[in-house]
Amino acid sequence: MRAVALGGGHGLHATLSALRRLTPDVTAVVTVADDGGSSGRLRRELGLLPPGDLRQALAALAAAEDGGTLWAEVFQHRFGGTGALTGHAVGNLLLAGLFEVLGDPVAGLDEAARLLGISGRVLPMSVEPLEIEAEVTGLDNGNGEAVSRIRGQVAVASTPGQVRRISLHNPGRPHQPPIACPEAVEAVLNADAVFLGPGSWFTSVLPHLLVPDLHDALVRTTATKVVILNLMPQPGETAGFSPEQHLHVLFEHAPRLKVDAVIADRDSVPTPVRLRRAADSLGGRAHLASVAAPGRMGRHDPDALADCVREALGLSEGKEEGQ
Amino acid sequence: MRAVALGGGHGLHATLSALRRLTPDVTAVVTVADDGGSSGRLRRELGLLPPGDLRQALAALAAAEDGGTLWAEVFQHRFGGTGALTGHAVGNLLLAGLFEVLGDPVAGLDEAARLLGISGRVLPMSVEPLEIEAEVTGLDNGNGEAVSRIRGQVAVASTPGQVRRISLHNPGRPHQPPIACPEAVEAVLNADAVFLGPGSWFTSVLPHLLVPDLHDALVRTTATKVVILNLMPQPGETAGFSPEQHLHVLFEHAPRLKVDAVIADRDSVPTPVRLRRAADSLGGRAHLASVAAPGRMGRHDPDALADCVREALGLSEGKEEGQ
Repeated sequence: MRAVALGGGHGLHATLSALRRLTPDVTAVVTVADDGGSSGRLRRELGLLPPGDLRQALAALAAAEDGGTLWAEVFQHRFGGTGALTGHAVGNLLLAGLFEVLGDPVAGLDEAARLLGISGRVLPMSVEPLEIEAEVTGLDNGNGEAVSRIRGQVAVASTPGQVRRISLHNPGRPHQPPIACPEAVEAVLNADAVFLGPGSWFTSVLPHLLVPDLHDALVRTTATKVVILNLMPQPGETAGFSPEQHLHVLFEHAPRLKVDAVIADRDSVPTPVRLRRAADSLGGRAHLASVAAPGRMGRHDPDALADCVREALGLSEGKEEGQ
Repeated sequence: MRAVALGGGHGLHATLSALRRLTPDVTAVVTVADDGGSSGRLRRELGLLPPGDLRQALAALAAAEDGGTLWAEVFQHRFGGTGALTGHAVGNLLLAGLFEVLGDPVAGLDEAARLLGISGRVLPMSVEPLEIEAEVTGLDNGNGEAVSRIRGQVAVASTPGQVRRISLHNPGRPHQPPIACPEAVEAVLNADAVFLGPGSWFTSVLPHLLVPDLHDALVRTTATKVVILNLMPQPGETAGFSPEQHLHVLFEHAPRLKVDAVIADRDSVPTPVRLRRAADSLGGRAHLASVAAPGRMGRHDPDALADCVREALGLSEGKEEGQ
């Protein structure tokens, strides 16, 4: 099975960990709009793709392999102290070096994947650093109807207002749509199954739908399309969001997208009938299961998630193992 | 042939490049007293061994191998710009990460060597960062007899005075002698041939003799001991030094050390008879040959240097190739 997972951060990590239990052929398509932390500093200083989400995806795939452990640990290691390097992950610096030397982030990511002994692939959704802009209500201290515009992933993810809609652009040419990474478009078109979510909904999941060629590939692909919902609303960008509302904003940002399956944690869905109706309106079926990791607030259990994906795709147990 | 080369910087690079033409079994034992540039910043910020000279030695050995080229290029790549990372070599950052994750610089260097596809080994002369202190004359604007003390590799290497003698210590416990890296001691004891120089005489070549266990190993080893002289005096630390004076300060810093061969460039020795006499007083023989790289001021030609080493060791042409 050729599986493609779109996302960023911890959410993508969860999907990749689950998918690697089902198939060795996993491609991650990763958001490149981060402007915070080590990634944000590297992006501003060197003008490169923010490497942090890409590094996390590489580490998630490496963790499933034998051998690559030391390099995965080095990749994830952050410098301490209080100096110029504080907080930089070694893998971010190494990716930055590879990007500069090879002049091509896709080639750089492929080399990093080889170093980590990964059988899958990690791709950026675009080879240009992008910026998220959000329309937000509730910041006017008035009747909550005024719309404010907020720029940057960190600002959007932490707004105390209600995010209504996002847009995505390259700050260098703000009036043209972002350009998709061709290898990512190809991967989506050739996939057997494509996965959206979980993760920060507006800043890690939806951005992929706003890259026109990637959006079109998602609409056109014959792959089974699976949405994996979050275990809980995220403080800031999706505070108070119900599972149905997550699907609703997905539809608002990509009205032509049909979805085959929606995976949700049983205990995180207050009104299952509403979720089933929302999934149905997107063309798909809701799959409710216990997929939360016991004792790890808000994190998916990779084994349970893999089982639920297997069921949603109609795969028989063990069928795809050892492929 | 098991060859061990002691030094640092460009000089060590020249020896390693030549030795790799003679044998795959080359160990570099590298100075760890650098306090300048990217290395100095990393050393001060993270309290680690300064990685720059170690990185250069890895790159020199990698250049002789097939395959390791991309990673050698990434290792040597320096970030540009004007920010916090400016001037840092990617390999320095990666070595720093390996040192922190593994908690052991020797293990970190062995991993880096594996990444670069190196058959030899790069070791630090000590696993603690060390500091050079120099006694310098000629800084008093008077009769030139007053002795000043200067600290730090950069300060010593660039002093306008005349360096008379150096000492080496760990700034953390200044009253105890520096501790040798045990693997470096072992390598010297088990070597067939050991090489000192070329390079910055006081700051890259002599420091090894001031680590007591390493000095004792050099005195005790049955290896053939070869000193390779510089092509020209170095502005700053050895301005105006004759080839004989280089040997003289070597003897002053390690009176018990016997040397079997002294290699010098024919055109860089004004009075061959004096050099022969100086080599003789150290127990060895002077080998004069044309070893300068044409058109590259102050650099050795690796092929010519390899030929001269072969002659000095009494190896027949090609004997050690492909071992």
